[in-house]
Amino acid sequence: MAYVKPEEVVENMLQAGAKKASLPVKQLLIRGFLSGAFLGYATTLAILAATQTGWGIVGALVFPVGFVMIVLLGLELATGNFALIPIAVKDNRVPFNRLLVNWTWVLTGNLIGSVTYAYLYCIVATKMGSIDPATIPALQRTITIAETKTLEYAKLGFDGTIAAFTSAMLCNWMVTLGAVMAFTSTSTIGKIAAMWLPIMTFFGLGYEHAIVNMFVIPAGMWLGADITIADWWLWNGLPVIAGNLFGGMLFTGFMLYWSYGKVNQ
Amino acid sequence: MAYVKPEEVVENMLQAGAKKASLPVKQLLIRGFLSGAFLGYATTLAILAATQTGWGIVGALVFPVGFVMIVLLGLELATGNFALIPIAVKDNRVPFNRLLVNWTWVLTGNLIGSVTYAYLYCIVATKMGSIDPATIPALQRTITIAETKTLEYAKLGFDGTIAAFTSAMLCNWMVTLGAVMAFTSTSTIGKIAAMWLPIMTFFGLGYEHAIVNMFVIPAGMWLGADITIADWWLWNGLPVIAGNLFGGMLFTGFMLYWSYGKVNQ
Amino acid sequence: MAYVKPEEVVENMLQAGAKKASLPVKQLLIRGFLSGAFLGYATTLAILAATQTGWGIVGALVFPVGFVMIVLLGLELATGNFALIPIAVKDNRVPFNRLLVNWTWVLTGNLIGSVTYAYLYCIVATKMGSIDPATIPALQRTITIAETKTLEYAKLGFDGTIAAFTSAMLCNWMVTLGAVMAFTSTSTIGKIAAMWLPIMTFFGLGYEHAIVNMFVIPAGMWLGADITIADWWLWNGLPVIAGNLFGGMLFTGFMLYWSYGKVNQ
Amino acid sequence: MAYVKPEEVVENMLQAGAKKASLPVKQLLIRGFLSGAFLGYATTLAILAATQTGWGIVGALVFPVGFVMIVLLGLELATGNFALIPIAVKDNRVPFNRLLVNWTWVLTGNLIGSVTYAYLYCIVATKMGSIDPATIPALQRTITIAETKTLEYAKLGFDGTIAAFTSAMLCNWMVTLGAVMAFTSTSTIGKIAAMWLPIMTFFGLGYEHAIVNMFVIPAGMWLGADITIADWWLWNGLPVIAGNLFGGMLFTGFMLYWSYGKVNQ
Amino acid sequence: MAYVKPEEVVENMLQAGAKKASLPVKQLLIRGFLSGAFLGYATTLAILAATQTGWGIVGALVFPVGFVMIVLLGLELATGNFALIPIAVKDNRVPFNRLLVNWTWVLTGNLIGSVTYAYLYCIVATKMGSIDPATIPALQRTITIAETKTLEYAKLGFDGTIAAFTSAMLCNWMVTLGAVMAFTSTSTIGKIAAMWLPIMTFFGLGYEHAIVNMFVIPAGMWLGADITIADWWLWNGLPVIAGNLFGGMLFTGFMLYWSYGKVNQ
Repeated sequence: MAYVKPEEVVENMLQAGAKKASLPVKQLLIRGFLSGAFLGYATTLAILAATQTGWGIVGALVFPVGFVMIVLLGLELATGNFALIPIAVKDNRVPFNRLLVNWTWVLTGNLIGSVTYAYLYCIVATKMGSIDPATIPALQRTITIAETKTLEYAKLGFDGTIAAFTSAMLCNWMVTLGAVMAFTSTSTIGKIAAMWLPIMTFFGLGYEHAIVNMFVIPAGMWLGADITIADWWLWNGLPVIAGNLFGGMLFTGFMLYWSYGKVNQ
Repeated sequence: MAYVKPEEVVENMLQAGAKKASLPVKQLLIRGFLSGAFLGYATTLAILAATQTGWGIVGALVFPVGFVMIVLLGLELATGNFALIPIAVKDNRVPFNRLLVNWTWVLTGNLIGSVTYAYLYCIVATKMGSIDPATIPALQRTITIAETKTLEYAKLGFDGTIAAFTSAMLCNWMVTLGAVMAFTSTSTIGKIAAMWLPIMTFFGLGYEHAIVNMFVIPAGMWLGADITIADWWLWNGLPVIAGNLFGGMLFTGFMLYWSYGKVNQ
Repeated sequence: MAYVKPEEVVENMLQAGAKKASLPVKQLLIRGFLSGAFLGYATTLAILAATQTGWGIVGALVFPVGFVMIVLLGLELATGNFALIPIAVKDNRVPFNRLLVNWTWVLTGNLIGSVTYAYLYCIVATKMGSIDPATIPALQRTITIAETKTLEYAKLGFDGTIAAFTSAMLCNWMVTLGAVMAFTSTSTIGKIAAMWLPIMTFFGLGYEHAIVNMFVIPAGMWLGADITIADWWLWNGLPVIAGNLFGGMLFTGFMLYWSYGKVNQ
Repeated sequence: MAYVKPEEVVENMLQAGAKKASLPVKQLLIRGFLSGAFLGYATTLAILAATQTGWGIVGALVFPVGFVMIVLLGLELATGNFALIPIAVKDNRVPFNRLLVNWTWVLTGNLIGSVTYAYLYCIVATKMGSIDPATIPALQRTITIAETKTLEYAKLGFDGTIAAFTSAMLCNWMVTLGAVMAFTSTSTIGKIAAMWLPIMTFFGLGYEHAIVNMFVIPAGMWLGADITIADWWLWNGLPVIAGNLFGGMLFTGFMLYWSYGKVNQ
Repeated sequence: MAYVKPEEVVENMLQAGAKKASLPVKQLLIRGFLSGAFLGYATTLAILAATQTGWGIVGALVFPVGFVMIVLLGLELATGNFALIPIAVKDNRVPFNRLLVNWTWVLTGNLIGSVTYAYLYCIVATKMGSIDPATIPALQRTITIAETKTLEYAKLGFDGTIAAFTSAMLCNWMVTLGAVMAFTSTSTIGKIAAMWLPIMTFFGLGYEHAIVNMFVIPAGMWLGADITIADWWLWNGLPVIAGNLFGGMLFTGFMLYWSYGKVNQ
């Protein structure tokens, strides 16, 4: 009986949201740090796989390794929490201010973890700067991705911001489904398989994920991408966090809550 | 004991059909909306995978991600319901008018979800129209598919309608088996593996699925395919819904009901 | 404890053989029809996969989808029954005449299902005959396979009949092991994985399977293969049924019965 | 709780060794015959896969199908028994002479099964000798492998015998781990996955396995390899059996027995 | 209920650390020997796969076979123990001197196993030295890897040592997560899938693993790499062991202990 029915899945989402919102700041930072780093590992592996084979879809097939480790080890990822905590607040299981505490410190932890991994990765990949990134395809691709994710949107002005926001919305619909799908099973192999699907989907389609970008944009910058910190946050960071929040909260969080949440009341 | 024997599978089909037919309109719309969007995601991922590798079979290998999420989360897909509800009506578990209510609102929800995802996808993929779809292989292929699925049938007149109907019949024989195969296991990993098989099969063979087409044809149109809304519904939409209905209801629904349904009476 | 020991596997084989031999004709026909069609689907998918990638082994990797659906849904496949029913007769669980009833009507059902799918597939693949099969690689390959499976044997006369019989014997040793391997697990995922192995093996090696040929030869003929119905049955149908029967009954049925069957007496 | 701890695994190894050593000759021959043939099937599939794709690793990925069927159906494979029975003798669970009986008759059964499959395979693959093996890549490769596995060692004299012995030792370290890994799970899917790993490893690395060679060398000879029966046994058969025995008995059997076996006393 | 929650995972880590630290020297040597050899097998398989396909990622996909066998059979790997034992010491479950005993003898066992396999592998791969390694791509690649892992760092002096240390730190963060992920499931298939992910990740990214290098560097030297034993230990062995220790102990061991370990007190 390893399958869990949707009514219970939504109840589990509400409990997880409430529990996550109650964690102390220290835990949010440590668990957020690990999550940020794990997504960094996954992104470097995916870029490598895509570069070696020439097929982006192979990168998408391996990318979920990071997300799976985060969920199985109960760590904190801001994008996942965008779906889980608002419905717990709505269901009166946790006060609104805890939502703000969780999101603030988890985002901070995710950022520190991503940037730390980016820095260490650059040290290793360039052997302390002794290798020119342009000579290594995976590094060159990292630079290109970082530039595309910022300068391409900047070129389009407000239209670029809408495109980034929309992409982020479509992204986190799937990412949060990854967190939800993990609840459909009580077995580890079932959880892994179920969450692999939406995570592979969003990454394959190249949608904008705030935490992945917290690795790829600074890594690109250290490797030589022609981007400023303002470019990062103005054209990618802020609209993408907003889109991730809106997509995860509405399409996954509330839509499933409206479908199955009332049943238990 | 995670395997479920065929007699129980058919009993589960009857119960699921009865339960689905009893859902209120609001649920049919929300759950139908999510299903339509999920198949849209899956279709874009599959087109991307097929375009990148040059092998359609790779697209088929990843396409089931959407269907699996729909079934595991208990959402509503009209094509699946074509097999489940008629036998529940026949078995006197639910009145005929509930069948009509379910199909009408689920089809509406599926259409809204598919078209919404198509619109958002086009915004992101063309960056608010700033990129010419002809320069991106996956978008070009989307346009070609949309044209093939309508104009090619139109060219053949009534023969085209028969071909579309037959293709849709063969399609939904498999799609509905996806829903049935999910009942052969009580574990999530078993359900995923079992339903993956027929869904991969129909998509690989390119058979016509009404809800997939509710994404791919409007997306193609927004990207520049030379199709009218009349082309869509006259040459694809209506004959494909009819074929999906006939194939799913007869070959999966009633054939399994005739084989195993009487046993429980 | 999802693993089932060989002694119990053989006991399950005997019970399944006895149960299958007791089914009424109507069930044999419906379940045989579905099995024939499912192998047709699987064959078209496998031919497509092999044609697209250029690697026959990829076709073999996806072919078991049809067999898995047959076994999980408890349907009737003559080749599988060649191993299961004779030992049940030998073990006095069912009279010999029921063996003849089962084989006759299941073969008939398999034939109707295979030919029906072949006909519908040809309608769709050629769009009611408006497309020349020679322009579509998968259809061209279907024609070639149909010709190879008949005319190549015919050319060799009696030697060809021995080759076809031997190939069929090696084929059904594996196919019947597929049915047996499904008994080694009580979980759906275990059954799927276990039966995938021998089915993939026989198809990859290109051995002759009577029911697969009931799809591929008539489909080839409709698409334009230069074969007569006499060619089909004389050079392929009859020797292949005989080889399938001999291989399945002796190497799988009786060898496992001799190994483990006596234990229960 | 499908995972089995190492202490129990070693206890299971001892029980299996004792049970296998107690089987009557008839069972050893039938079960040995089936095992030999199954490895033959697996080898032909692997050679085909490697030839079609040009990547030996793909052959290694599919090769374990045969070994998995052997273990799940409780059949007898001499190389596996080299690890299981000596420790059962050492642990006083079975007298030494039963070890000799088991090995003699299982080797005989394996040889008959392998050679029978080799003969039938050659009939089918060359269509009763009407096709020149040199025109079919997989057959040509079989000939080459058979020659490499004998003549290359012969050329080096005693050094060749040491190389063959060492290769066989490294081979059976992994093959016997396949038998051991199957004991780490009580579920069929767990057993399949666990034993797949070492079997894939040894085959990918091309180490010498006595039973695989009992298929590939005679098949090569029938297809035209320039080898005598003396070449087979002198340069491959005998040193490889010796290396398989030494590697399996010492590195897997006794090392695990020394690690975990005493715990139970 | 095969999934294990993080609180229990950390408790299991502490118990495993304490148990491993209590093993007698003989067991540490035997189990360490087997682990070293298994990673050697895995490395040769991965190098072969990467060389044949030209894609390093394929090597990474198969590499975890060795690690999985080590964990499922409860063997001893120094790098894994770097995360498990320090927290057990910190939690007062085992005295500090047992940590030193474990690490010393497990490292010794790992080294003997790796070097033994390297020697036997070279005998087989070069057929007792009769084949020039430069003519076999996988051997040539082994030589290149061994040189890159030493001489490239040497060229950079202290910067090289920092790069090697950092790479080793990033490596063992993942390797130790492999050991941890195995605790997230009570089923064998769940353990295999869960630990596959981080191991595949570190190997794909080419981070420095002390035990893998204990195979690849001596093997490269025997095959003709232009390295001294001083190069090995000075530029790779020592900084990599230090980085493995620091990364595994801090990022996996203590970070998870700080997150979940206090809960049980």
